[in-house]
Amino acid sequence: MTNPRLKKGLVQVYTGDGKGKTSAAFGLALRAIGRGLKVYIIQFIKGGFDYGELYIVEKLPNLTLKAFGQGKFVTQIPPGEKDMKIAKEAFELAKKIVKSGKYDIVILDEINVAMSLRLVKTEEVINLIKEKPEHVELVLTGRYAPKEIIDISDLVTEMKEIKHPYKKNILARAGIDY
Amino acid sequence: MTNPRLKKGLVQVYTGDGKGKTSAAFGLALRAIGRGLKVYIIQFIKGGFDYGELYIVEKLPNLTLKAFGQGKFVTQIPPGEKDMKIAKEAFELAKKIVKSGKYDIVILDEINVAMSLRLVKTEEVINLIKEKPEHVELVLTGRYAPKEIIDISDLVTEMKEIKHPYKKNILARAGIDY
Repeated sequence: MTNPRLKKGLVQVYTGDGKGKTSAAFGLALRAIGRGLKVYIIQFIKGGFDYGELYIVEKLPNLTLKAFGQGKFVTQIPPGEKDMKIAKEAFELAKKIVKSGKYDIVILDEINVAMSLRLVKTEEVINLIKEKPEHVELVLTGRYAPKEIIDISDLVTEMKEIKHPYKKNILARAGIDY
Repeated sequence: MTNPRLKKGLVQVYTGDGKGKTSAAFGLALRAIGRGLKVYIIQFIKGGFDYGELYIVEKLPNLTLKAFGQGKFVTQIPPGEKDMKIAKEAFELAKKIVKSGKYDIVILDEINVAMSLRLVKTEEVINLIKEKPEHVELVLTGRYAPKEIIDISDLVTEMKEIKHPYKKNILARAGIDY
């Protein structure tokens, strides 16, 4: 049942304004660890927020998660010094983890948003994609994936919002939205 | 940290031709059980196939999964007698589980496809949505969600394929695609 290594790792992107981008990445992680693959998730921006998945992820084998951020949304462009520093740290870790080749799947959650906020330079992500070991699958999530990233990625899915209950004044709910 | 019950359960739909529908539902399940919610997943059509997530799901608390199907794709419309019988059994279980109110989230994976193949009647799903206990969140996945279902659902996301590697002759890979 185990499949210790992928022959060829691709670059996947989940973007768009709809729900399910991070969830799809976590679902993918679940499938992968079910096969004995090793997964590393680095979350940009989300650190310090209270997400339901964090309570269960730590109990799962072969899955490591590290979240970066100050527990509040980055809204300023260019962002403040502290946010820039944290994002740099997150991206340095991403490079190290990807290039180590020790993880079959590396998920960079919300990195598309980080690029759009200029917390991470798009060229640096492009370089990482070009330099990644052949067997490593790279998964990039978040709204606003830059066109240059889409162009060099293999599998791109846009989560498109068709209908959203927030428009009916329903607030975010624990266990569902966070 | 635990949130024993949702105040109001919505109806979510993940549809479209892109990747990530089932994964998004599994990611949602992961988040929910992280909060102590109870999740039941019923898979239409997929039973008998070897999916990576099955190996890990059985180890997770508060998550039950039951897959129905013959381990091969249903392509005939109307489908054969055996497939109809299995789908009926799956939908009977779905009704029972939803109406029991014992599960906070019920995921009917690939039910949209089951409706499009006429394995399950759309009116019956509409009735189930109307009759579900207030606190139960219902998640319907699969391509080809019927318009009548989208109309009465609260949160609808279309996974849109922007780019797919199968078009570059890359085959499905264990741990990623199944």
